[in-house]
Amino acid sequence: MAGDCGKWVVMVTAQTPMNMSVIKYWGKRDETLILPVNDSISITLDPDHLCTTTTVAVSPTFDRDRMWLNGKEISLSGGRYQNCLREIRSRATDVEDDENGIKIAEKDWEKLHLHIASYNNFPTAAGLASSAAGFACLVFALAKLMNLKEDRSKLSTIARQGSGSACRSLHGGFVKWIMGKDEDGKDSLAVQLADEEHWDDLVIIIAVVSSRQKETSSSTGMRETVETSLLLKHRAKEVVPKRIPQMEEAIKNRDFASFAQLTCAESNQFHAVCLDTSPPIFYMNDTSRRIISIVENWNRYEGTPQVAYTFDAGPNAVLFARNRKTAILLLQRLLFYFPPDSFFGLNSYIVGDKSILKDAGIEGIKDVEGLPPPPEMKDSIPSQKYMGDVSYFICTRPGRGPVLLSDKTQALLNPQTGLPK
Amino acid sequence: MAGDCGKWVVMVTAQTPMNMSVIKYWGKRDETLILPVNDSISITLDPDHLCTTTTVAVSPTFDRDRMWLNGKEISLSGGRYQNCLREIRSRATDVEDDENGIKIAEKDWEKLHLHIASYNNFPTAAGLASSAAGFACLVFALAKLMNLKEDRSKLSTIARQGSGSACRSLHGGFVKWIMGKDEDGKDSLAVQLADEEHWDDLVIIIAVVSSRQKETSSSTGMRETVETSLLLKHRAKEVVPKRIPQMEEAIKNRDFASFAQLTCAESNQFHAVCLDTSPPIFYMNDTSRRIISIVENWNRYEGTPQVAYTFDAGPNAVLFARNRKTAILLLQRLLFYFPPDSFFGLNSYIVGDKSILKDAGIEGIKDVEGLPPPPEMKDSIPSQKYMGDVSYFICTRPGRGPVLLSDKTQALLNPQTGLPK
Repeated sequence: MAGDCGKWVVMVTAQTPMNMSVIKYWGKRDETLILPVNDSISITLDPDHLCTTTTVAVSPTFDRDRMWLNGKEISLSGGRYQNCLREIRSRATDVEDDENGIKIAEKDWEKLHLHIASYNNFPTAAGLASSAAGFACLVFALAKLMNLKEDRSKLSTIARQGSGSACRSLHGGFVKWIMGKDEDGKDSLAVQLADEEHWDDLVIIIAVVSSRQKETSSSTGMRETVETSLLLKHRAKEVVPKRIPQMEEAIKNRDFASFAQLTCAESNQFHAVCLDTSPPIFYMNDTSRRIISIVENWNRYEGTPQVAYTFDAGPNAVLFARNRKTAILLLQRLLFYFPPDSFFGLNSYIVGDKSILKDAGIEGIKDVEGLPPPPEMKDSIPSQKYMGDVSYFICTRPGRGPVLLSDKTQALLNPQTGLPK
Repeated sequence: MAGDCGKWVVMVTAQTPMNMSVIKYWGKRDETLILPVNDSISITLDPDHLCTTTTVAVSPTFDRDRMWLNGKEISLSGGRYQNCLREIRSRATDVEDDENGIKIAEKDWEKLHLHIASYNNFPTAAGLASSAAGFACLVFALAKLMNLKEDRSKLSTIARQGSGSACRSLHGGFVKWIMGKDEDGKDSLAVQLADEEHWDDLVIIIAVVSSRQKETSSSTGMRETVETSLLLKHRAKEVVPKRIPQMEEAIKNRDFASFAQLTCAESNQFHAVCLDTSPPIFYMNDTSRRIISIVENWNRYEGTPQVAYTFDAGPNAVLFARNRKTAILLLQRLLFYFPPDSFFGLNSYIVGDKSILKDAGIEGIKDVEGLPPPPEMKDSIPSQKYMGDVSYFICTRPGRGPVLLSDKTQALLNPQTGLPK
């Protein structure tokens, strides 16, 4: 170790995306290593709209490992953090920071402590699982700081031990988490199927659904499903292994009809095995079901899928529109059924890529009120409006994998003290 | 044919109960004969609270078969009615009505026409499937009129062709519908496992849940599940065959804990395969889920099941309390969360066996307002009230099978004209 009298701080800042599964991960075969009962496939979301930024720092002045999440210090004593930190430290190598004249030898990493600050660019209240982006960012940033030689897929096996789905956030675009066979989990990792440019027609709209229910955590939920559902094993052994190559093919060919059929069926089957759990787990509510009806009715009316839906461990809908034109029609439908509260207005109701709103010709509440009922709306859905049932919508798209942020102003820790700014 | 110059009318009136399945029937292997993909088990409900009354009449003056349901004439041209009428006519035998000096020979039945009037003693708006009791009553009454020699289980094979679950309404108490193996459906029939006296501790409370959704008919729903669900086959082949003997054993031993565990798991798995259908079928809504939470929380708090729930093709909850004492505690909980609208009052809010209400010490709205929160209610369920989410409750019990009503004043057809009274 060398440097300015041991007062130096070395920092790395990274940004890592969220991902949304289209072939679902539900059920572990190993709780500690976090090994799943089936492969899964996800789409990485544009980090401009949904991401985690993490700064990791090392300094001989730090007396213990510490972490701040969204500005608040949290404990690192949990097994998941400890597993990730241990796995990364064991792979650390020599670091030479020529700029500041600092050298850290491989053996020093065991003695040095870390400061970690992490921040999500979306409200926690959204109920959007942030642990995937969070653990992926932690692992990616630390791997850079400690000069790990492992590639992203290898790093994904470490992130996986923090939060299963985190492994998929190590890549951009379209990602497969291969369940693997090894008992030690070394082959349970994420690979990129295609990058985010491959299918850039896709538009993603997330409906953040208001909920008064306290939800079962996904860890608890999947454990209870594994223990009690008589359908889960059949799903994992017979259904998913057939769907994985079908989904890979659909993505490869940008075949939206197959993609939509598989994505919706997967979401529904995941919630079906939750319901087959004892006691049953409900993540979707009446608003979620209403959104499904709107999409299913529209798809049936058009004769070919326009939009696919998927729901994770909560009531929020993630909708995939086949292209920008469809996304405009989708947003009009969503605003027709779920208009914004006129007091708060449109600006905070549609976030992310607001340009879709503009292309839809909607600039204010008046334009929403003027939206005609969708033509597919017959007696099947009453023309009722559900103001207040959706908190807001996020417009986004497939996005890139983790990146380093070299702009030092974006660091979350003070470069002198190593404490949160 | 002999009698008073061909002006006679011969009539029979019968009353037949509804039944509620605890091992679910969902999916046909033969759409025309109505042959199921698995066995099912039901409990017959007390006809004092839920039943169909049917009068069937024959007269040489009738020029065609006609039917009135709840006072309104309906068409008999549907395949299901035609199948039942054909099957019954083919088994008709000689009838001698000594009282009126009328003789009808076996061969005459092919030429004679029928009048049928049917009436449900519960509102159609309840969304409680009335076709089971209806077809069972039609078949039972006609079998008597036409002097069929078949026993009730044989008659159940005819009722089955009107509506699958109707076959189970031919018996009282606890009933199994054996799926059978024959292609012609002759061995797909209902048998009684135990009569209604066997386990008369059980109290049944039905929550009629308000719903704005238009529901998928069960015929359409089960066809779509058979065609698209990848989980249904596994359920029918692997899961239900194991649960049937377990449920028979639980009923035989009046083992409420096993009965409750199986009943709830079956209800949830049935709704799981509905959700696994494409497009997904939702019968339960947020109110249904709230009732499940109330029951699950209470059962967990007590450490042993107090109440079981089951939901058919709609949002209504059917709750089984282990005994009268538990039923009182259940009703108090239900009224705590779902109080009646004070304008309409209690009298029309709790129907059926109102004595449970009295034993619960609840005589008016004031008593409902004074109900304390259940002790198991911690932070898990907010102490919110959901007035208006339940339309009303029906208190009932296991009941008897079909009976003939010899009191002629109860006939629904005029004995002279054979037309509705």
